[in-house]
Amino acid sequence: MDRTFEESKALVEEHLMDFIPNIDNKSISLYESMKYSLTAGGKRIRPVMLLAACEFAGGNVMEALPYACAVEYIHTYSLIHDDLPAMDNDDLRRGLPTNHKVFGEAQAILAGDGLLNCSFEAAVKDMMLYFDSPEKIKKRIKACNEIAKGAGVRGMIAGQVSDMEAENAPASNELLEYIHLNKTGALFTSSIKAGLHLGNPTPEMLDDFTKYGENLGLAFQIADDILDVVGTTEELGKEAGSDIKQHKNTYISINGLEAAKARLNELSNNALGALEHYYDNAEFFNKLVLDLAERTK
Amino acid sequence: MDRTFEESKALVEEHLMDFIPNIDNKSISLYESMKYSLTAGGKRIRPVMLLAACEFAGGNVMEALPYACAVEYIHTYSLIHDDLPAMDNDDLRRGLPTNHKVFGEAQAILAGDGLLNCSFEAAVKDMMLYFDSPEKIKKRIKACNEIAKGAGVRGMIAGQVSDMEAENAPASNELLEYIHLNKTGALFTSSIKAGLHLGNPTPEMLDDFTKYGENLGLAFQIADDILDVVGTTEELGKEAGSDIKQHKNTYISINGLEAAKARLNELSNNALGALEHYYDNAEFFNKLVLDLAERTK
Repeated sequence: MDRTFEESKALVEEHLMDFIPNIDNKSISLYESMKYSLTAGGKRIRPVMLLAACEFAGGNVMEALPYACAVEYIHTYSLIHDDLPAMDNDDLRRGLPTNHKVFGEAQAILAGDGLLNCSFEAAVKDMMLYFDSPEKIKKRIKACNEIAKGAGVRGMIAGQVSDMEAENAPASNELLEYIHLNKTGALFTSSIKAGLHLGNPTPEMLDDFTKYGENLGLAFQIADDILDVVGTTEELGKEAGSDIKQHKNTYISINGLEAAKARLNELSNNALGALEHYYDNAEFFNKLVLDLAERTK
Repeated sequence: MDRTFEESKALVEEHLMDFIPNIDNKSISLYESMKYSLTAGGKRIRPVMLLAACEFAGGNVMEALPYACAVEYIHTYSLIHDDLPAMDNDDLRRGLPTNHKVFGEAQAILAGDGLLNCSFEAAVKDMMLYFDSPEKIKKRIKACNEIAKGAGVRGMIAGQVSDMEAENAPASNELLEYIHLNKTGALFTSSIKAGLHLGNPTPEMLDDFTKYGENLGLAFQIADDILDVVGTTEELGKEAGSDIKQHKNTYISINGLEAAKARLNELSNNALGALEHYYDNAEFFNKLVLDLAERTK
């Protein structure tokens, strides 16, 4: 019996601070600022997908928690840095003051740096527990490698840079999809693949879920744009780490609302199609796609 | 025959860009901004110590290069973020415009994030090469674990936070040494220990070099303060990542120049004493200490 999204989310939130090292009193404000953003809500979609993928591939979900928390640390650091005055200059995130509004810019920069470092510290510390089991070590190294790539300069950070550079620039669908594939899709996909690696994935499974993750990431961004325009919710957009601003190009600003809905439908079908030969075994992942599409209707 | 400091430095600089992933044209500015700061000079003391420690413990220096470059990526990211307007607000670093002066604040934040991510990406990618050798994997995981701890929220980042908070605050030698032990000493020590782990260190060796690294880190900062006051050089101070400003407390501002020189002498002797039973085998490390003391005379 697979865990539901809500059950996995509760598990992640229960353990979210477990892999943040205890911090000396002299730098306790660092701990407080990291904790503030980590516990300020969020859908926890990346860690939940990691746990679901681990379960899908026959892995041990409890043992996957350090990696699940690691991807949430990375997502959270990216939001803290994105919100800075030099970046998106946002005062609010999920209805609360942004990290730098509460702790100041310098502390927010360091809290972001700290969370990124904590993610790898958690993963590598976990590897140290399995020196008597080369097979378990390999799975963990592969998972950590996926996370490092997805979060890195050919993944999420590349997306952030091109997103920033594309502001006020002529828009094209090609550039927009490049941005979203990297800024959102890369960490989505690497979270899923990291989870698979912690189980016993086949090469075909890794390919199928890569296709799924990339399409879901793009779909997520377009759903985000649609929700922002139709104004039915505020949270999804923040969750994807993309603040839709007037000066930013979106799929809708280029192609219009109807075309965006059609593209979302297409991407959803691609994501579902990538996993269709797993039938009900991929129910968790199919439901994610269907729920996303449903919310934009 | 051990490599000299200059030989190791040249080796590090030759390979410094090897572990930065190739980046898509759409985010080439990210690559350029990381490269700008990585190649803007510096003594490379952390990677050189890592290689020397690896050699000391009988390891393969060429195989240690990804980890040596990783600690330089971490040091460089910390300088980029330290220089930001919200932090030390420096326009110059090693005589060149700081990263944000050239590429803008947003890009500098992302370049720093990118370098931190690259350091772990390099280390973990390297681990992937040794799946047929559990012993080599263990050495690498231990090395990466040291680096993650030294760079992290109980190490370098803790030091940066307390350094920031101590500005304009009443000074104490205890707080100052806490700051320096973390801000400089932690990555010094973890670079050395990471190098040792890549060889075949004894537990005693790890303890001795921890004592050495901590004392060297403190000595480095005090030498830095002394050089800043006596004004004989500009580079050492920047190298330690600490910009001595009028509003910042230093060992000299609290205790005076003569007491600082005496404390430097004491710390140097502690560092030398930690390794004295290795006699000439520790020549590289002894020379580092003696050269530091010599320069402040």
